[in-house]
Amino acid sequence: MSTTEAFINENAPRFQEELFEFLRIPSISTLPEHADDVRRAAEFVASKLRDAGLENVEVIPTDKHPLVYADWLHAPGAPTVLCYGHFDVQPVDPIDEWKSPPFEPTVRNGSVYARGAADDKGQLYIHIKAIEALHAVHGKLPVNVKVLIEGEEEVGGESISAYLPANRAKLKADVALVSDTSMYAAGLPSLDIGLRGMIYQEWIATGPAQDLHSGMYGGAAPNAVFGLVELLAKCKNAAGVCQIPGFYDDVEPPAAAEKESWDRLPFDETEYLRTEVGSTRLTGEPGYSVMERTWARPTFEVHGIGGGFTGPGAKTVIPAKAVAKVSMRLVPRQDPAAILPLIRKFVAANTPAGISVTIRELNASPASMVSPENVFIQKAALALTDTFGVETVFTRCGGSIPVVGEFDEFLGMPTILMGFGLPDDGLHGPNEKFLLDNFQKGIRTVAHFFESLAPA
Amino acid sequence: MSTTEAFINENAPRFQEELFEFLRIPSISTLPEHADDVRRAAEFVASKLRDAGLENVEVIPTDKHPLVYADWLHAPGAPTVLCYGHFDVQPVDPIDEWKSPPFEPTVRNGSVYARGAADDKGQLYIHIKAIEALHAVHGKLPVNVKVLIEGEEEVGGESISAYLPANRAKLKADVALVSDTSMYAAGLPSLDIGLRGMIYQEWIATGPAQDLHSGMYGGAAPNAVFGLVELLAKCKNAAGVCQIPGFYDDVEPPAAAEKESWDRLPFDETEYLRTEVGSTRLTGEPGYSVMERTWARPTFEVHGIGGGFTGPGAKTVIPAKAVAKVSMRLVPRQDPAAILPLIRKFVAANTPAGISVTIRELNASPASMVSPENVFIQKAALALTDTFGVETVFTRCGGSIPVVGEFDEFLGMPTILMGFGLPDDGLHGPNEKFLLDNFQKGIRTVAHFFESLAPA
Repeated sequence: MSTTEAFINENAPRFQEELFEFLRIPSISTLPEHADDVRRAAEFVASKLRDAGLENVEVIPTDKHPLVYADWLHAPGAPTVLCYGHFDVQPVDPIDEWKSPPFEPTVRNGSVYARGAADDKGQLYIHIKAIEALHAVHGKLPVNVKVLIEGEEEVGGESISAYLPANRAKLKADVALVSDTSMYAAGLPSLDIGLRGMIYQEWIATGPAQDLHSGMYGGAAPNAVFGLVELLAKCKNAAGVCQIPGFYDDVEPPAAAEKESWDRLPFDETEYLRTEVGSTRLTGEPGYSVMERTWARPTFEVHGIGGGFTGPGAKTVIPAKAVAKVSMRLVPRQDPAAILPLIRKFVAANTPAGISVTIRELNASPASMVSPENVFIQKAALALTDTFGVETVFTRCGGSIPVVGEFDEFLGMPTILMGFGLPDDGLHGPNEKFLLDNFQKGIRTVAHFFESLAPA
Repeated sequence: MSTTEAFINENAPRFQEELFEFLRIPSISTLPEHADDVRRAAEFVASKLRDAGLENVEVIPTDKHPLVYADWLHAPGAPTVLCYGHFDVQPVDPIDEWKSPPFEPTVRNGSVYARGAADDKGQLYIHIKAIEALHAVHGKLPVNVKVLIEGEEEVGGESISAYLPANRAKLKADVALVSDTSMYAAGLPSLDIGLRGMIYQEWIATGPAQDLHSGMYGGAAPNAVFGLVELLAKCKNAAGVCQIPGFYDDVEPPAAAEKESWDRLPFDETEYLRTEVGSTRLTGEPGYSVMERTWARPTFEVHGIGGGFTGPGAKTVIPAKAVAKVSMRLVPRQDPAAILPLIRKFVAANTPAGISVTIRELNASPASMVSPENVFIQKAALALTDTFGVETVFTRCGGSIPVVGEFDEFLGMPTILMGFGLPDDGLHGPNEKFLLDNFQKGIRTVAHFFESLAPA
């Protein structure tokens, strides 16, 4: 066992306690009443970066939630790694379905249950503790490190999107390290070399000037809820294929080798349906495997809908207004700027008579891919394989981390997506969890990865 | 001027004050927290029936909201009229859109604005004040009167539905008088000889076992909101025609004479669209006039929908659950008992893969029609024509008053729908109002109608 590993093992109980303290902060970025909690999470991160031996620690105010920056740049000849993470979390509804309170970390079966446990507090804390271990043991770091952690990842990340192009020199690095994804399976170390992008919008439908009595006007007055329902239903056919013309035009299929490697991954569709999805049937485009559908195909999804009377009992109104939250996941070569006008055109052409629909654009970011031959990817794979004792696999992730595309666009560097979550961690839903053994192994892996990047 | 009319004119200010007191009671029957208010409204009605000279006044407890009964049966040889109304009201949302508080009656431009002003407190109070005037002036009534007033009309009327068949002898009358509809236009006295029936249901869709991350599972996991959207969109085609097989099979078209009389009614579609509906276009089945579509054709309507994330910001879930409130308005010869299984069959056949939909039936009642040749209809028309100085027209009403069908079914009597509301009264929406001149003329008309029924 290396001295770094020994330090990590000795300090494991303290690292865990600190993580739990972090998880107790309800830093829900989308809810204005939690703005102070997001700020408290930023201060917590800044203080731990200082403790880890990093320098130039800053809590950077923005128009919304603060960014945290730190660096350590005293390894001449060694590469520079930019560590990224986010300390904001998703809302907790439906709160009734949580088995323990979302902001009271609770250990069950070796996992800690809490909102943000895997997404992303537990994972970003791995980076901080790996840096602390290296610094404590060697009095220095084997690589140059910059750290940039945000508090708006769950709400579009506008502030970091503005900060990156304005601070190119300050943030310039050779590679970004992001731990905000999942391993393919428990015990199977994985590197995500592709992420889907996303367009997220609100569609607001209006019909009559005010809610009308459905007896008096039913049969003549347009209904905003039904109009929105008609429009949404036209967006995807019964087979799950998006009907917006041109939507699939620029989709790049996965390389044959990549597709073949996916076929070799352990996957049991029945088990996936039963334990992860929990439904009677899967859906999606025919002719594509589940992996292709969730990693390499774009989607059209409705995240929420509301309009008219939904209280208890019977109210007979023709609703004046309805709203839907809609997203499209994007895959390599699909350009959000090219797709946005296709959506607007489709909505304009397919809005029923008597209804008006306005689109509010919440965010838009492209997919991103890294070559499996990239030297940093190769060394990251070795570090994972060493720690877990199992060959690392290359996968993709169907989720969206817009900042990864921006690291490429503004800083010209690839990103290592070294995720330590598990597929059943329940991200964004109730009972989110994070395996504590992965927290521990993650710290060892990142420390080992940094050591492997030191000049020979 | 008859002595009854003189009494009504002299007491007009007091009648109005009493109505306002009635309107201040927030008797919203669908909201459990207002149950005491519904009861207070029942007590108010009972006390005013006593003051009017009626006998055997009872507040009858039920499983839900009380019924109020009273009678005066000392006119041998004269017919018996059953007066019906309801003292419960609809909820007030969207509350922001009310110009004055819904339970603080406020007079603007000769109308009183309040929830329940027209539907139905203002109208049922016409009956009570007409009876009071006749009793005060003559010391007796020209007809036998029974009064039955309920507090569940806006929530399905289960208690009165149970009470009617169990109390046939007590309630037996020659005709029912209901004032819970609108005149065709201001100053144009109307009798509604047809009412649409209604089936009202909640459709509950479930997909995955819990909300899922749309990045991880988007493209493979079924989405309860989208599944419900797909199902609802299949229920009606783009032209507004219900797609449930067999739905239109038993529809009886209006008689040629009735249809022709509708064509002579004053109607300006542009004005109707602008001032009543407030939208850019009307909708509905092609080939039918607005009157046919709202009076003589059945409808399929979605009153409300909810599911997934609808708060501010962007949350990327695949929703596990979604709910819609759905109704079908029914016309003569359509039998709810025959249509319910058609709906269940259609929903089962058209629910998308991976989604389950359960139907909760909230109520079901048939349409009802009375012949324009009926003697009570004829005398009611004369009373209206005398009071308003304009020939009474025969119309229909697109709304549903389930109890009217039940009067026919259980008590074997026709119903006079003598409405004093106006088409722009805003029933069920914000800023409901009732024209005070119609309140006054209504009292005179009902008194005059009762006098005309006295044996020669």
